[in-house]
Amino acid sequence: MQVSDLYAMNFMPTVGRADFPLLGENKRLKVAAASGKAFAASSLTPDVEAEQEKLLWADAVILQFPLWWYSMPAILKGWVDRVYAYGFAYGVGEHSDTHWGDRFGEGTFAGKRAMVIVTAGGWESHYSARGINGPIDDLLFPITHGVLYYPGFDVLPSFVAYRVDKLDDDGFEKMAAALRGRMRDLWSAAPIPYRLQNGGDYLIPSLTLKNGLEPEGASGFGLHSKV
Amino acid sequence: MQVSDLYAMNFMPTVGRADFPLLGENKRLKVAAASGKAFAASSLTPDVEAEQEKLLWADAVILQFPLWWYSMPAILKGWVDRVYAYGFAYGVGEHSDTHWGDRFGEGTFAGKRAMVIVTAGGWESHYSARGINGPIDDLLFPITHGVLYYPGFDVLPSFVAYRVDKLDDDGFEKMAAALRGRMRDLWSAAPIPYRLQNGGDYLIPSLTLKNGLEPEGASGFGLHSKV
Repeated sequence: MQVSDLYAMNFMPTVGRADFPLLGENKRLKVAAASGKAFAASSLTPDVEAEQEKLLWADAVILQFPLWWYSMPAILKGWVDRVYAYGFAYGVGEHSDTHWGDRFGEGTFAGKRAMVIVTAGGWESHYSARGINGPIDDLLFPITHGVLYYPGFDVLPSFVAYRVDKLDDDGFEKMAAALRGRMRDLWSAAPIPYRLQNGGDYLIPSLTLKNGLEPEGASGFGLHSKV
Repeated sequence: MQVSDLYAMNFMPTVGRADFPLLGENKRLKVAAASGKAFAASSLTPDVEAEQEKLLWADAVILQFPLWWYSMPAILKGWVDRVYAYGFAYGVGEHSDTHWGDRFGEGTFAGKRAMVIVTAGGWESHYSARGINGPIDDLLFPITHGVLYYPGFDVLPSFVAYRVDKLDDDGFEKMAAALRGRMRDLWSAAPIPYRLQNGGDYLIPSLTLKNGLEPEGASGFGLHSKV
């Protein structure tokens, strides 16, 4: 197992000119272009390259974080912004207006598994189907579908620990046992059945789901799972 | 008008011990507690206090950013993580298991307006109701509802500019004209009709929407708007 403890590493979260040493001093920074060029030239910074190596090495990747303002802490978002270079996590495969490349189920991480583990201070009911915060799986969709499925991971259902600041020893033990169970099933659990971009479910080039494919009653993010 | 150009300011996005000078060196950092104590003691760092002053000063706040991995760039997420202190943007008003404080329509920024302006490289159809990325308003819900409505802002519909890296002069002019229109209507446009937490629509303490209040056919995030 390899661990990237971003706080312990003092990981720098801001994409900027320092990420792209090849970029001319007076040249305007266009992140995707600069990122693609630097990735192709193996000239990204060592901290970013080290994280990319870990992702290539892993059979499964777990993003573990506290839910801050309904999303990842900035340091983890910056890890995504910096490590997910063009040509590595996006811009993979042919890209044009008629072919959108290898993404959403295909890409660099195809064949690997990924999972989100989240700790939250709030109550489970507040994140339930009718809860005021919105359903947790919808809040996490930009991450599970947008950050993990996009570059090809098979994404397992998220593990969410609620009210963690109020946990007593007994509650902690139960939660730890549940998490151990999920870890034991890491290789056997069924991934979220998101739809392949290039599997025939979407119209080209609008990339809208073809009529009639939606699960009954589904809308919004729910269209992009087969169940 | 005041502008916080986070990149130009070299804004530091990572919440850490440096944010809480009063925290003992050997004391474990619990962000909410440390944040509340520091805010109450006016001992947050000057960069954070300056941003809080701007928010208090403003009648309207606009978050403008490029959509990176379906969310805000890390530097802006870190601005939220650091500036939104306990007692300032959350933990406002009485908090207990039966009273959840002043949030979701109430709080420090009640009476002010806010709006998101997003630039995206992708096509509008990819972010449409059936688009592969998910509907843009759902992708932005953790921000519009979770970051802006939570501390009390009235949130205007988001302005989204698509395919911005492919805009020609004519396309730019049209987009600029549309945005100017939105800016002219800033004070008159109807906010998104999100539901007040404390307006009677939610059960206490589960904070789930009462049965029958949902707009016809709505589910997920859609439950939390009146229309």
